[in-house]
Amino acid sequence: MLSVKTPEEVLAMIETEFSPLSDRTELLPLTAAIGRVLAEDIAAEEYVPDFDRSTVDGYAVRARDTFGCSDAIPAILRQTGEVLMGEGADFELESDCCCAVPTGGAVPRNADSVVMVEYTEDYGDGSIGIAKPTAPGQNMIFKGDDVYPGKSVLKKGRVLSSQDIGALAAIGRVQVPVVRKLRVGLISTGDELVPPEEKPGPGQIRDVNGPMLTALLSAFGAEVINWGIVKDDEEKLRFTVEEAMKNCDAVLLSGGSSVGVKDAACRIIQSLGELLLHGIAIKPGKPTIMGRAGAKPLVGLPGHPVAAWFVTRLFVLPLLSRLMGRETESYTVTARLTESMSANHGRAQYQCVRLEERSGELWAHPIRTKSGLISTLAGADGFFCISRDCEGLPEGAKIQVTTGE
Amino acid sequence: MLSVKTPEEVLAMIETEFSPLSDRTELLPLTAAIGRVLAEDIAAEEYVPDFDRSTVDGYAVRARDTFGCSDAIPAILRQTGEVLMGEGADFELESDCCCAVPTGGAVPRNADSVVMVEYTEDYGDGSIGIAKPTAPGQNMIFKGDDVYPGKSVLKKGRVLSSQDIGALAAIGRVQVPVVRKLRVGLISTGDELVPPEEKPGPGQIRDVNGPMLTALLSAFGAEVINWGIVKDDEEKLRFTVEEAMKNCDAVLLSGGSSVGVKDAACRIIQSLGELLLHGIAIKPGKPTIMGRAGAKPLVGLPGHPVAAWFVTRLFVLPLLSRLMGRETESYTVTARLTESMSANHGRAQYQCVRLEERSGELWAHPIRTKSGLISTLAGADGFFCISRDCEGLPEGAKIQVTTGE
Repeated sequence: MLSVKTPEEVLAMIETEFSPLSDRTELLPLTAAIGRVLAEDIAAEEYVPDFDRSTVDGYAVRARDTFGCSDAIPAILRQTGEVLMGEGADFELESDCCCAVPTGGAVPRNADSVVMVEYTEDYGDGSIGIAKPTAPGQNMIFKGDDVYPGKSVLKKGRVLSSQDIGALAAIGRVQVPVVRKLRVGLISTGDELVPPEEKPGPGQIRDVNGPMLTALLSAFGAEVINWGIVKDDEEKLRFTVEEAMKNCDAVLLSGGSSVGVKDAACRIIQSLGELLLHGIAIKPGKPTIMGRAGAKPLVGLPGHPVAAWFVTRLFVLPLLSRLMGRETESYTVTARLTESMSANHGRAQYQCVRLEERSGELWAHPIRTKSGLISTLAGADGFFCISRDCEGLPEGAKIQVTTGE
Repeated sequence: MLSVKTPEEVLAMIETEFSPLSDRTELLPLTAAIGRVLAEDIAAEEYVPDFDRSTVDGYAVRARDTFGCSDAIPAILRQTGEVLMGEGADFELESDCCCAVPTGGAVPRNADSVVMVEYTEDYGDGSIGIAKPTAPGQNMIFKGDDVYPGKSVLKKGRVLSSQDIGALAAIGRVQVPVVRKLRVGLISTGDELVPPEEKPGPGQIRDVNGPMLTALLSAFGAEVINWGIVKDDEEKLRFTVEEAMKNCDAVLLSGGSSVGVKDAACRIIQSLGELLLHGIAIKPGKPTIMGRAGAKPLVGLPGHPVAAWFVTRLFVLPLLSRLMGRETESYTVTARLTESMSANHGRAQYQCVRLEERSGELWAHPIRTKSGLISTLAGADGFFCISRDCEGLPEGAKIQVTTGE
């Protein structure tokens, strides 16, 4: 018999029992790659910039020709050219000469700095007065200052941000190797469930987990295949699970509030592969099972929507991240509790909150209701964890809230 | 002449000068609505649950029939029924009777609590021993406990989370009124720019702002229409801006590192409508202009990609939020600086960072480079602001980092 595991043990088990998929790379056009997971390390293949550039509007000079000049005794240089934006500067700057360059423009060979136009005077006879000495390198970016061939730009596993897209554009990587979307199968079980578009009859309720988890998994970047609602019938359930496992990279079975379905799910996992987990020491979410058929995970989620949401957020997303080789950084915001919380010894307790800013400080309202379905879900801004050893938290206590999805 | 505004003044101006679009609602299927902005307040139209439900496996009873019972002297009740999952319980429970119910099952009329099966014994002759008294309401959820007709569920302006999708499923709102996607036109200007897929010639660089801002705006939920690169020619630029303004809800003009383009953009805005802003007291990002043609904003962004990214993130997204009537909560994470930072008096200074967790504490590495393009953009995890009055920050100083996009 498998024992109940702590959250940390479950996360460690996910790392040891599952591996990144081998067939996981696809090429996407640059702007379509945002939010996707980079499948390979990216290094630059060329110099950026590819030429010495000015960072100001002014005159490119050889710095030593300006040494000792001042407002009172300007250095007089002969203007031998003007660089236009977007054109090369493939000529050599002679001694005691200068060349007009715009911000971002190319700087001619032998010039080693640029004097801002504010410190110059055009005498109108082809000569320019320089009123301030400059040092080599000043107001210039040299070829390859930003990146050069071989320089690491981005690491695989990174979720691409718009800034990363900008960096890829700059080095001309217009086809981006990303991890393909995982196909995740979703099966809702329960004799009491009707699809959300139907009006529930006596004793029936709408299927919440199907659309809610479809939304959560899609937003995470998975392609969700929803196999609909299966009634509490082991043979039908087995057939649907087998079909889903054939067509998907991972399958989530939600529900089975009845003991029969839970047992059936265990038997199905065991007949297809190996049962790895039977219960997590968290609240809500204890009745969770996890198994494996080959490299593919099969997870049995609790039927209660709040519990199903937490288990998916806390364990299924890291599991999918593992399959994708995706980085899993997740940051928390500090907030203070608006009311005291009692603790539930022996199990890590997860609590949804609404956040409110009061005079520059963030406060978290625990969303607590008797029945805890819609009233717990709707409008939550995040959640926090009361650890299993915690004796309870007073009003005003600082907590770490995970926001976003 | 318009003066340079502080970031706070710019955000206040956005609120007063622009209003939510009037034609902004579309209906979407439930699971497609995730991440979209709710266009109307949502109230429940029915009871959830629609019947009295048990929260445990056990026996529905009239609580008073169990008063005074104990392990030693159980209350003996006659079992007069069994409720099956997903079926109604449309009958009345008589005195001294009980009825088997599963977790989530309906509870018959007159029953006011449920005794967990663990505290009962089935004598096999149709009678059940109850070993623990129960109180009215125990282990039950009553009709409408969660929501009832008219109860507010979600407020308009909210960005829908997967939990919100769950709540909408529970009340049967399978068509969700959301704010339509804004169409945002993007024009890159500059004689030095080539599309990212082209190899830059002498003095040329790739257009970074086009793909980067397309990605940022798409991820935010806008439909981006990219008008490509326009060379520094006022008539061509005017024609493109006019076309873009006709077809879009907002237009962003990026670049114009040359003085000519900036002036041209001002003249174009003034001929189409009104110039509202000429410069923001931030670094990077000062050379930003903003105007309005009718209700439509037209923004001139700096050409430098890092500056263009910050201005879009800090001011254009709030501007689009204003047009959408979208809530704008954004939370920051606390981190400590890995190195001291000098401050730039007179302008709020924005700095990209990489985040790293060290023994439970979050540290922020400022990403500082001389040239500050790819090396500044690639791999950033967030940014923070050094306020205009700040004298500088020592190593280890606590800062507030905005992560995500």
